[in-house]
Amino acid sequence: MTAQQRRILVIGIGAGDPDHLTLAAVKAMRRTDVFFVVGKGPEKASLTDLRLRMLDEHARMPYRVVETDDPSRDRRPMGRGDYTLAVDDWRTRRADLFEAMLRDEMTAEETGAFLVWGDPSLYDSTLGILADIEARGTVSPDVEVVPGISSVSSLAARHRIPLNQVGRPVHITPARRLFDVGQNDDGDIVVMLDAHESFSRIEGEGVWIYWGAYLGTPDELLVAGPLRDVADRIRRLRAEARSRHGWIMDTYLLRLADEGTGPTAPVTPGEPGGDA
Amino acid sequence: MTAQQRRILVIGIGAGDPDHLTLAAVKAMRRTDVFFVVGKGPEKASLTDLRLRMLDEHARMPYRVVETDDPSRDRRPMGRGDYTLAVDDWRTRRADLFEAMLRDEMTAEETGAFLVWGDPSLYDSTLGILADIEARGTVSPDVEVVPGISSVSSLAARHRIPLNQVGRPVHITPARRLFDVGQNDDGDIVVMLDAHESFSRIEGEGVWIYWGAYLGTPDELLVAGPLRDVADRIRRLRAEARSRHGWIMDTYLLRLADEGTGPTAPVTPGEPGGDA
Ligand SMILES: C[S@@+](CC[C@H](N)C(=O)[O-])C[C@H]1O[C@@H](n2cnc3c(N)ncnc32)[C@H](O)[C@@H]1O
Ligand SMILES: C[S@@+](CC[C@H](N)C(=O)[O-])C[C@H]1O[C@@H](n2cnc3c(N)ncnc32)[C@H](O)[C@@H]1O
Repeated sequence: MTAQQRRILVIGIGAGDPDHLTLAAVKAMRRTDVFFVVGKGPEKASLTDLRLRMLDEHARMPYRVVETDDPSRDRRPMGRGDYTLAVDDWRTRRADLFEAMLRDEMTAEETGAFLVWGDPSLYDSTLGILADIEARGTVSPDVEVVPGISSVSSLAARHRIPLNQVGRPVHITPARRLFDVGQNDDGDIVVMLDAHESFSRIEGEGVWIYWGAYLGTPDELLVAGPLRDVADRIRRLRAEARSRHGWIMDTYLLRLADEGTGPTAPVTPGEPGGDA
Repeated sequence: MTAQQRRILVIGIGAGDPDHLTLAAVKAMRRTDVFFVVGKGPEKASLTDLRLRMLDEHARMPYRVVETDDPSRDRRPMGRGDYTLAVDDWRTRRADLFEAMLRDEMTAEETGAFLVWGDPSLYDSTLGILADIEARGTVSPDVEVVPGISSVSSLAARHRIPLNQVGRPVHITPARRLFDVGQNDDGDIVVMLDAHESFSRIEGEGVWIYWGAYLGTPDELLVAGPLRDVADRIRRLRAEARSRHGWIMDTYLLRLADEGTGPTAPVTPGEPGGDA
């Protein structure tokens, strides 16, 4: 049996602002016959909504939408090894699901598309899953990627700042790895996927934070300033918004105000910082 | 004397592919009365050309274009301290130039725009210069930033890879700082502004490179593979292209093939790697 060919577009749609779609993304949507919309978590309704409104506006009629739930993922707190295992298991189940969709919901003559939040290249599993499917050999996805505006680019734009200081590196990290990066250089640090307000565990001296939540949406929140002056305000805004919406998406840049060796000297792990 | 107000758009235009313009960028161009186009170096003609073609297609008539040369910058090889000084001097001269343009080439009722290559948040000085001008207090720019698709996002899209591995950080660095970043973690490294093929100085064992030049343009070049297998090919392609065009723009991602503590163990600095 030879693998079934499938033409797949992976389209970055920006992280909340519908005008962050690129012309290439709009053209790609117009070439698509079937859209795969994978939802997850409590934010699902809002995020799926935005996608469907984009299709209303840009896709070529008639088109089909295949909506599916993301297989649930074990989100208990865990160590790094367990975390990798849990992610692996979840990816296997997700690959089963994607494989079935690609096989059963479209033909070799059609074009399918995944609408990916932000930029497909940042902390998104779609490309990894498509690679896993390819390796299995039953369905062979021929993938084209359309880059998107990430929440990181949005954050910088809304604060009107560069991500990097002149000549210096910038690090992008999931919150759980915050204390592994940038200890040995003067680069700025962008933190994503932070469920635990990890900025609270940072010594505030000389560190600036540029924080943004629900970027690009009508609910956008922005705070910038010296970490020790604004951390309280961020925690308060964050708690309020989270209970109002039932979920939160936020990201932030940590920047050393002047020369130094890294903003991330941890206070006692798990304990809020000293600026409360 | 109060500062003269100026409405300024800083518009990311993508790093080479005209379809990487966002809808927001197109709308911003339509609101603009005067475009400031700052050229530099031997690539100036091509890059300015792309901008002018975008204006032809998207800007609202009539519009004005103010083209200017970037003040020349001292590009001799130098240490980190000297480098910072040279950049500072160059930025002062650039601020003088920008200040004069904002003051003399537009009015308080008009909207001016800078068309910035890629994403304004990555290794671009426009926002820093506008902040410097604001601090001087004679012209007060009211700045709005439209994010763009960076060459980094383009690189990942063309290679159909994420920038990060699952749960890991990613580092973006100018080549001159390559050996300062990622030594202590397992994150991937994106290298920009590399005039010296710094990947040649890396121990190839276990490292993959995803390289791209002139991304998004008709001259695009892509190479991916284990560093020790493809480094020669990249050097050859790079030299050929550079001599044909007179300039080159390239960027690359370095990735550890499996668990490890960082792909950047330097060989003797300044010496080409062992795979030549
Ligand atoms: C699974 S990652 C996906 C990132 C996405 N691919 C991108 O390019 O932005 C989700 C994380 O991105 C960040 N994020 C995504 N959208 C956001 C938004 N609109 N405002 C703030 N942060 C956002 C948050 O840190 C969130 O935890
Ligand atoms: C001064 S920085 C500007 C980066 C830009 N703001 C961005 O978002 O891509 C210039 C560097 O970006 C990278 N670059 C820009 N455009 C590129 C392209 N089309 N192909 C490959 N690399 C590019 C190269 O590493 C180059 O040295």
